[in-house]
Amino acid sequence: MLKITANTSKVYDILIGSNLIKDCGKYISEVVNPCKAMIVTDSNVGPLYADAVKEALCSAGFDVYIHTFEAGEKNKNIETVYNITLSLAENGFNRKDIVVALGGGVCGDMAGFASSIYMRGIRFIQVSTSILSDIDSSVGGKTGCDLPVGKNLIGAFHQPELVVIDTNVLTTLPKHFYNDGMGEAIKYGVIAPSDLMDKICDDIDIEQLIFECVDIKRKVVENDEKEQGERKLLNFGHTLGHAIEKYYNFDKYTHGEAVAIGMCMISDAAFANGYCDKTVGDKIRIACKRFSLPTECDAPIEELSKIALSDKKSTSSGIDFVLPRTVGKCEIVNIKKEDILPFLKKGIK
Amino acid sequence: MLKITANTSKVYDILIGSNLIKDCGKYISEVVNPCKAMIVTDSNVGPLYADAVKEALCSAGFDVYIHTFEAGEKNKNIETVYNITLSLAENGFNRKDIVVALGGGVCGDMAGFASSIYMRGIRFIQVSTSILSDIDSSVGGKTGCDLPVGKNLIGAFHQPELVVIDTNVLTTLPKHFYNDGMGEAIKYGVIAPSDLMDKICDDIDIEQLIFECVDIKRKVVENDEKEQGERKLLNFGHTLGHAIEKYYNFDKYTHGEAVAIGMCMISDAAFANGYCDKTVGDKIRIACKRFSLPTECDAPIEELSKIALSDKKSTSSGIDFVLPRTVGKCEIVNIKKEDILPFLKKGIK
Repeated sequence: MLKITANTSKVYDILIGSNLIKDCGKYISEVVNPCKAMIVTDSNVGPLYADAVKEALCSAGFDVYIHTFEAGEKNKNIETVYNITLSLAENGFNRKDIVVALGGGVCGDMAGFASSIYMRGIRFIQVSTSILSDIDSSVGGKTGCDLPVGKNLIGAFHQPELVVIDTNVLTTLPKHFYNDGMGEAIKYGVIAPSDLMDKICDDIDIEQLIFECVDIKRKVVENDEKEQGERKLLNFGHTLGHAIEKYYNFDKYTHGEAVAIGMCMISDAAFANGYCDKTVGDKIRIACKRFSLPTECDAPIEELSKIALSDKKSTSSGIDFVLPRTVGKCEIVNIKKEDILPFLKKGIK
Repeated sequence: MLKITANTSKVYDILIGSNLIKDCGKYISEVVNPCKAMIVTDSNVGPLYADAVKEALCSAGFDVYIHTFEAGEKNKNIETVYNITLSLAENGFNRKDIVVALGGGVCGDMAGFASSIYMRGIRFIQVSTSILSDIDSSVGGKTGCDLPVGKNLIGAFHQPELVVIDTNVLTTLPKHFYNDGMGEAIKYGVIAPSDLMDKICDDIDIEQLIFECVDIKRKVVENDEKEQGERKLLNFGHTLGHAIEKYYNFDKYTHGEAVAIGMCMISDAAFANGYCDKTVGDKIRIACKRFSLPTECDAPIEELSKIALSDKKSTSSGIDFVLPRTVGKCEIVNIKKEDILPFLKKGIK
């Protein structure tokens, strides 16, 4: 088992290893005294693992309840969050009790947001079951849900007490989900100095890969928990990635796929505008292709640029883009509203 | 104009004076650069003051929008909060923009909660228009709404950038609302050393009264923002008060009235159990009667005790009651579940 300690406004551990679910009660009881525990999971993950987590928690002395919501991005809304809080209230949960999020990114978001507002904040634990949530959403404390007009528009910063990543669970994932997660892994290889990009293209042990990605994210979040500066680096490929997801109505590309295309596009634009040489985009393309991730799409750049400008991260002065200098070093550059389209267009052959 | 500076996780000023609304744009622009401002108000207060606040903000350079929700405690729910966030999103508000809560306690709760979750937190200003919100909810950063199963079960701690209390506005309040606010004022006189109780029974200037109450609350909140200890003193009279409100379905007594009864009951119980002498309850009764506040009700103590035990502030070990030692000094005493009914019963003649 590998362990990372995150030193944010709360100090907590991230445990990475195979078969951790069956002992998760023990790990959780090391950070939280036995109390009521609500396992919050979705209709995909619940049937596979909720019983095992329940058993583990029960044997550690917890009084366990299960709340299951319908799986899918479309349920990442306020109703799902509200129903979790209702379930907590109806079962008499108080400020000393805990929520255990069991699932991927959406589940962590829903359970984390619900526990951040229930009684103005109760503690929660994350048992992560997808690569994407392992390396992205399980660290950093961002929780939230969508509004009809945009993704992640409401939410809270709420750090977990413990994150448990069971790498065995990943073997049950369809290949597709695995590749999707690798989109984010490639991102970490570009934004921070490491040998991650080389390892990704070789055969890296999954436990080690997750460890390295989480550790990069940990460092970034520790330096800038509330996203005032450095944390924006984590958005590499995401401004265009989000726009691509939105342009296709969240239907054609998964998050990891859209980010893969976004990384390629912004690297091309960075090269064309003199920020880096051509090899950066080339290397990203090679890595993406290795995991069957797309590297381009047919959405008109005019539309993507318009959507990006309506994103919550744009301000009246423009958008902070994350531009690569080399593989392993990126820079946050504010590009003015009127300059965005020409900047991006230059990258398109 | 009187000014109090609250030194919580955020440092902000509370301005108290007559006719402050017409200059509120000036005061707000001293703490926030001109940006988009959403005035959030209810259907009672909006028609009276929203235009004046809008004008004041516009002349200070803000780009002003108004969101009005239906007045009343029954609208203190997630739908109202959600609609505010939707209105912010639809009007393109970003992280640098602000919300201005214009109204009493419910309005501050709704606008404060919505701004705490919109984009994971944007800034808000409170323009308070009721005595109850002036002296209670405008300081301390607690925001939130009700669930069908209980009051204030979801919410967030979110401190404002500035609080503006216009004492002129209070002259438009029906006498009933004025008295309701005095229930909370009496509470401050009991929990902290001051000459507030004597002043309340004399003729105190309203500006001075609000100043003294807010200043007591400020000190308590500064010492214990997240309610781990001392802040619980603010619950004096509230455990039973909330139970009384709930027993009568929030129909018979206002919050201030229920707290008045709660303070009398808990003081009687404290006297009967040897925590204080009889004069404490007597003095509270005199003050309550001066403002036509009730001092008893016909709800069976067995029922109130049961409701109190289901409150979010009860834990598996019992309830932290705030018991008076003298007028000006209270103590937090945890009473075990099984001891609560006998303890309270002893106070009933």
